[in-house]
Amino acid sequence: MRDVCVMGCGIIKFGELWNKSLRDMFVEAALKTIDDAGVDQIDSLYVGTMTPGLFVGQEHIGALMADYLGAAPIPAVRIESACASGGMAFRQGFLDVASGMSDIVLVGGVEKMTDGADVTYALSTAADQEYEVYQGITFPGLYAMIANAYMHQFKATRKHLAQVAVKNHYNGSLNPNAQYQSVITIDDVLNATMVADPITIMDSSPVSDGAACVVITSMEVAKKLKKPIIKVIGSGAATDTLALHQRNDLTTLNAVRISAEKAYKMAGVKPDDINLAEVHDCFTIAEICITEELGFVEKGKGAEFVEKGETALTGKIPINTSGGLKSKGHPVGATGVAQVVEVVEQLRGNAGKRQIKNAKIGLTQNMGGSGASSVTHIFSM
Amino acid sequence: MRDVCVMGCGIIKFGELWNKSLRDMFVEAALKTIDDAGVDQIDSLYVGTMTPGLFVGQEHIGALMADYLGAAPIPAVRIESACASGGMAFRQGFLDVASGMSDIVLVGGVEKMTDGADVTYALSTAADQEYEVYQGITFPGLYAMIANAYMHQFKATRKHLAQVAVKNHYNGSLNPNAQYQSVITIDDVLNATMVADPITIMDSSPVSDGAACVVITSMEVAKKLKKPIIKVIGSGAATDTLALHQRNDLTTLNAVRISAEKAYKMAGVKPDDINLAEVHDCFTIAEICITEELGFVEKGKGAEFVEKGETALTGKIPINTSGGLKSKGHPVGATGVAQVVEVVEQLRGNAGKRQIKNAKIGLTQNMGGSGASSVTHIFSM
Repeated sequence: MRDVCVMGCGIIKFGELWNKSLRDMFVEAALKTIDDAGVDQIDSLYVGTMTPGLFVGQEHIGALMADYLGAAPIPAVRIESACASGGMAFRQGFLDVASGMSDIVLVGGVEKMTDGADVTYALSTAADQEYEVYQGITFPGLYAMIANAYMHQFKATRKHLAQVAVKNHYNGSLNPNAQYQSVITIDDVLNATMVADPITIMDSSPVSDGAACVVITSMEVAKKLKKPIIKVIGSGAATDTLALHQRNDLTTLNAVRISAEKAYKMAGVKPDDINLAEVHDCFTIAEICITEELGFVEKGKGAEFVEKGETALTGKIPINTSGGLKSKGHPVGATGVAQVVEVVEQLRGNAGKRQIKNAKIGLTQNMGGSGASSVTHIFSM
Repeated sequence: MRDVCVMGCGIIKFGELWNKSLRDMFVEAALKTIDDAGVDQIDSLYVGTMTPGLFVGQEHIGALMADYLGAAPIPAVRIESACASGGMAFRQGFLDVASGMSDIVLVGGVEKMTDGADVTYALSTAADQEYEVYQGITFPGLYAMIANAYMHQFKATRKHLAQVAVKNHYNGSLNPNAQYQSVITIDDVLNATMVADPITIMDSSPVSDGAACVVITSMEVAKKLKKPIIKVIGSGAATDTLALHQRNDLTTLNAVRISAEKAYKMAGVKPDDINLAEVHDCFTIAEICITEELGFVEKGKGAEFVEKGETALTGKIPINTSGGLKSKGHPVGATGVAQVVEVVEQLRGNAGKRQIKNAKIGLTQNMGGSGASSVTHIFSM
């Protein structure tokens, strides 16, 4: 397997982008990325996007984006793994370069959620239609069940959950590409509209439009480019039951743990070696559970960990320095690639006001559904 | 790049399978395939499917199928490239093994089209929504424009087109897994209901449910299995403009030609070396144009080529021995994988009444939209 590097990245400001179409957003992020990498050729394109068919009536996204980027006839394909589509697209691009088929691959993630589609229904297609959705469950409901089980089992409180949102909004206030750049308080979260008890609207990531891209290359190509070389040292993906009720324990995210174990093993590093992580905080409870599954803190101690500030910019392991899905926004297919963009910017020392100290090894973890799929990547300077 | 082999294949009879769900069909084909390969482990899963979100309200297909196959927590992802989703899923599985990440990969294609969705709308999402579909075009209309241009430019007739359907129905009559196992005549095609002049319903592939799978492995694993080793010697993918009107010539399928050139180059073979090909005959005109782009006959001579019987089971280059999309059926995401199943069965000498002589090297070509994406693979004993 060949060594693979991330040599360019680009993102557009996430938000309710009513004046930009799906293809507009992708092309804008892609052109920024190609400029950043300084490459004059692309061998192959991967686009992560969850459900453009339901959101905007368009499939065949790989070919569409190659076309509008002016990159046809390069091979191009769309990758879907619900909200982990971006992370899985990155993994497929990684394998393409690692195999020797391509030297320079563009990976993008994009989603257009605000064009009038029924967003709750469209997102529900990530759950088990036959055994969950047709019975009336939605994603806030699924994560509410996880949150209630967690709070009961580990004596955590709604305040613990709220602290994840407060931290991520603070980080997002330092990120010019975040959808919400506003600082919030614990009371703001606790007093916000209840969506599915105990999850309020401020425990939830927003509905967003956005796109992010990266250029990945072989080491041979990377050495010729005038950019810091960010190596992809670990890649792990895993799955779990699609339906939440089929798991042995509601608060255990097996796919997250296994995807991380695979990535750590491949990279030859331990959780303690990681300097920052971007993780899938679609709801506040998700970040707490994921922090545990990634091995940053033991099971049941995640709530206390965030309370102590250990996941803040100045903590032991800064998590979601970008603002995370909560504050940066969550255009679902774009999220996994946006996570890579943040880690690359941190490792390069380009993260501006939210730059952490001594960023040498970073991790991204992107999740689909209520945890039925997870993909973890580890990057080093 | 490691050598990659196809060591197992399985397909279910295509049709209007009202008693089988999306997951039922996939699991049935997958279990047949795993039995055929004789493997006791799978490292990774790729599922090609075009638009299950619109057809049955379900995305997150990779994780769903890993779950219902009992294969979780293996990595699993869904690949979409419109009607080329199956072929592109095969390519991603190929890259996974070639890279060294996985030793044994299951690739499946599946589509459930008869569950009540608006099929014409769902399929139209493979075209350019902004510049084609919103103006009222559908796929029969797009291919009718290609057919009219071809007939005008090369003095071909509706009878030429009809001969493709007649040949493919004859082949399909010998395939127990074909949706339609009936022999038809040229008059049956010419007198059938007109869909979009000059394309009748008998020039068109049907609406189908179905699934097909293959197991691909490294050469090291292949040598330990008690099966003929079918090597994947070439893989090429390419794209073109999504919208038909943006091309210089309506009858030229650039993506098909370029995907084939890449596959021939990688395999080190020429069109004359190919003993059989499964190609994307979504409409009769498509098979004629593709036969030319693959280099089996020169441009403009494809109609005459089929008339002379050169593409029949006993011809110079048998095309669509399975019955093709026209007669075997076209559950869109399954098609690209079903093509591989047919070539593997022919190379193994297991194709029953439709077995051709001296099948040593076979080719599959799978297309998306009106030709905006194409993927070609070449296989040898």
